[in-house]
Amino acid sequence: MDVLVAKPTTHLVQSIEADEVRIRTLTTGRDVRLAARSNTLTVPTSGVAATYLQANLLILPSRYAADFRLLCARNPVPCPLIGESAETGAYGSIKSNIPGLPDSRILADADIRRDAPRYNVYHDAKLVKQGCLDITEEWTEDHVAFLVGCSFSFETALTVAGLTPRHTVLGRNVPMYRTNIPLCPAGVFTGSTYVVSMRSYKASDIEKVREITRGYNATHGEPIAWGWSALENLGIVDIDIPQWGDSPLTEDGRRLSEAKDSDDDVPVFWGCGVTPQEAVMVSGIKGTVMAHAPGHMLLLDCTNSDIA
Amino acid sequence: MDVLVAKPTTHLVQSIEADEVRIRTLTTGRDVRLAARSNTLTVPTSGVAATYLQANLLILPSRYAADFRLLCARNPVPCPLIGESAETGAYGSIKSNIPGLPDSRILADADIRRDAPRYNVYHDAKLVKQGCLDITEEWTEDHVAFLVGCSFSFETALTVAGLTPRHTVLGRNVPMYRTNIPLCPAGVFTGSTYVVSMRSYKASDIEKVREITRGYNATHGEPIAWGWSALENLGIVDIDIPQWGDSPLTEDGRRLSEAKDSDDDVPVFWGCGVTPQEAVMVSGIKGTVMAHAPGHMLLLDCTNSDIA
Repeated sequence: MDVLVAKPTTHLVQSIEADEVRIRTLTTGRDVRLAARSNTLTVPTSGVAATYLQANLLILPSRYAADFRLLCARNPVPCPLIGESAETGAYGSIKSNIPGLPDSRILADADIRRDAPRYNVYHDAKLVKQGCLDITEEWTEDHVAFLVGCSFSFETALTVAGLTPRHTVLGRNVPMYRTNIPLCPAGVFTGSTYVVSMRSYKASDIEKVREITRGYNATHGEPIAWGWSALENLGIVDIDIPQWGDSPLTEDGRRLSEAKDSDDDVPVFWGCGVTPQEAVMVSGIKGTVMAHAPGHMLLLDCTNSDIA
Repeated sequence: MDVLVAKPTTHLVQSIEADEVRIRTLTTGRDVRLAARSNTLTVPTSGVAATYLQANLLILPSRYAADFRLLCARNPVPCPLIGESAETGAYGSIKSNIPGLPDSRILADADIRRDAPRYNVYHDAKLVKQGCLDITEEWTEDHVAFLVGCSFSFETALTVAGLTPRHTVLGRNVPMYRTNIPLCPAGVFTGSTYVVSMRSYKASDIEKVREITRGYNATHGEPIAWGWSALENLGIVDIDIPQWGDSPLTEDGRRLSEAKDSDDDVPVFWGCGVTPQEAVMVSGIKGTVMAHAPGHMLLLDCTNSDIA
């Protein structure tokens, strides 16, 4: 999951119980969008309508659209582009970036300004609104929305194979880290680096984990690095202190770094959908940029099997 | 150009003069292929039939084809896949990997086993033949050929814009360097890193150089890094000692490192087509792998403008 730390507000905590009942009735991507549109879904979307694809959302002034498209094309592992506004200003129709996946299969009957449960708004690369319920005021006819793949899809596949990610077993967010691996620059988007998500596995399971996630290229695909030695290569100083998400734990609740000498908990790193948001912020671009609030993804009409 | 050090043999030196006359008559990609097929082209193909696309060639046992295809898809900047054998064992027909570019436009009337001027052959990841004239003996019905973009295309565009790469002005090979930037792994292809080519430019020209090369995404596109500080980020220890090609010089023939304090010669780095050969060798895969001899590229039927 591409989930930033989302500290629940008092309102959120109060509504979680009601939401847990309600989200069980949300079985399709469209169900979830309609619930978000009517502001009746206030918890993160992890595990909601589990067979449907969830997307990172990034909305830019049109003058940056070509460069962002190129950034995704040049960095498809951390920034797998699923689709974008059918035309500048279009918040209801998406054109597909995935060969063989028709536009209509990605998103129909949608309002991208309201259909993610929560949004963030940036102005001149600074966060000015966090977790707002819609972006109807901020959206202009000059904006272009981009949908970027989210690793939720392969987490379902791992779970089906009996390799459930530890963070979901423990009810925690996936840990995410800044790295020193440079993104290939594209136009205004320069100077940024990969963000990675981490799930730990037994050393003997890593090849199977690689195989299972390999087919999910539209949602980050197979890991980019694994093993304790990968930390130095990625420039990760402390595995226990991720930059986003919750710190990783062993099965019995110890810090992951304490498992360094066993083969039971080897860190495995994947490209992460927080990367494009980072790239936008590092670039310092001007104007109003909008995104989903991390953890509160946009649900699509296509299913995980459509893109595997 | 994706050119490894190609030390001319005595035979090569003797034939260069005759070749220089002959290559002026080779105006199309097909002309060059036919000359190579009849073994009458023995010099590197840099500058030959300049408007036609040149390709890096990599030929693998079919069991590695899916992983190599994925390696290219995950690393499109250093490994831009133009096309591959229409089916396993096909050395005469190519299917296009470039949207909008028909198969027939890439290569018609070809024999990939004979149409590159010179080849290298590897067995179990070790070089066993260097610069041979054909690979008809080594090719089997189980082999798949891949064509990977070559930066020749954008060098022509730079020259047209008055930004002729220094190495071509000086009649030297482009310098190429190993880096510590990891490739995103794909199946058997793990543990390898980007190879980059370098051309130096005035600091004030770099944005223009970026713009011109940006459109050439099928042949590495815009630079991945620039400036003297990039050396540390890429893990390049000594700019004067490239791992392939000739050492870079200033306009007046000094070592490039001596220009470090001026804005006249700032190193600019691009993804390089040597990367996939490196990745194949680092992976230690078994069986017979073939490639063009670096510098002796396969000429295609499409032109630079077809892919820009």
